[in-house]
Amino acid sequence: EILGALRTRGGPLAGVRVTVTAGPTREPIDPVRVLSNRSSGRMGFAVAAAARAAGAEVRLIAGPVALPTPLGVTRIDVETAADMHAAVLAALPATDLFIASAAVADYRPAQTSDRKLKKTAESLSLSLERTPDILAEVSAHDPRPFCVGFAAETDHLLDNARTKLTAKQLDMIAANRVGHALGIEQPDNALEVLWADGAHSLPRAPKEQLARELVALIAERYRLQSKP
Amino acid sequence: EILGALRTRGGPLAGVRVTVTAGPTREPIDPVRVLSNRSSGRMGFAVAAAARAAGAEVRLIAGPVALPTPLGVTRIDVETAADMHAAVLAALPATDLFIASAAVADYRPAQTSDRKLKKTAESLSLSLERTPDILAEVSAHDPRPFCVGFAAETDHLLDNARTKLTAKQLDMIAANRVGHALGIEQPDNALEVLWADGAHSLPRAPKEQLARELVALIAERYRLQSKP
Repeated sequence: EILGALRTRGGPLAGVRVTVTAGPTREPIDPVRVLSNRSSGRMGFAVAAAARAAGAEVRLIAGPVALPTPLGVTRIDVETAADMHAAVLAALPATDLFIASAAVADYRPAQTSDRKLKKTAESLSLSLERTPDILAEVSAHDPRPFCVGFAAETDHLLDNARTKLTAKQLDMIAANRVGHALGIEQPDNALEVLWADGAHSLPRAPKEQLARELVALIAERYRLQSKP
Repeated sequence: EILGALRTRGGPLAGVRVTVTAGPTREPIDPVRVLSNRSSGRMGFAVAAAARAAGAEVRLIAGPVALPTPLGVTRIDVETAADMHAAVLAALPATDLFIASAAVADYRPAQTSDRKLKKTAESLSLSLERTPDILAEVSAHDPRPFCVGFAAETDHLLDNARTKLTAKQLDMIAANRVGHALGIEQPDNALEVLWADGAHSLPRAPKEQLARELVALIAERYRLQSKP
């Protein structure tokens, strides 16, 4: 009944089941120390809210952030990249459209200590291992949802984003420049949105507005692609 | 005039200039990745509010947290251990009582990259170096403020706290057990407060209440010690 109500509600994503990841992940070194990413989660939460406003049924898988859940969105809180990986895979059978905006830690400590490490040495070396590449795995899944990635880059923004789009076989990628008080943990952002045979610039704007524009673009591409 | 008004306002810390550190610090690996600590800052912010309520003039030096500034408290936001070190040293000439509740990162990456590192290797090794020990440095300063430390420990709580009290020549230390959903990032906490010739247990309570009890204990010891 709820699904039916959503489907008849209208909007460019009416009836589409969207999963959004947002925020950082936190990889424990010991019970106190962590490896993490700068990410307020604001862009992902704004995208979840905009997808919901566009009529979608939205699941938001969020790393540790200090943000309220957007109205009408189902939120699942996770901490580590492994947690996020598991939550995304669990959501996959009910996902038509996957928007990976989380800043997932790509490396984690190779060992995690249950006890707080004592600070004795003047220097030490921390061994890191790769975390699962959630977006690449979802994109390679069969059947696969429509996949939208994000790329936060300090250099060669468009080249790096285009490489990521191709390498992970994404449907779309939203690229933003980071550093110099732009992008991460800022209320404003600007995006270069790329897909296989096109691109669109979304100029600097508050993240809420940018998210609405991005979701409109995604909905357009999604509708084109899902038509026979 | 403002100082005078504070001094005549009364309360066990009336006219005392208190500097509190709170929250985690964040040590950049590159523009996106960071090394950090689990700390909500809640205990330190509660201590700052309680010290202010006890009549003190309070300066709060806070790492990245999502908390409102307590009323009447001067807040200085910092990010890294080096930032916090500089802010504390700058505040030192106007500090009678120093309460170090921040979870300062004790190691930071030996190198920080201005560019986002590309994730190519399956594993990598991160070289870490010690950060300055802010509390030990303040405690060794001449003239020195009354120094209160915190110890978050997973094991041998009292032994480790007593060792830290002695090693850093603190006036008091507040020790709490971490792990198993206790202490860090929880609304409740319990403290064992130690000084050279005494100790006092503060049983599990909301951090606001605990902070008031701790500040009352600190004020008592501070008054005894500052009397000729």
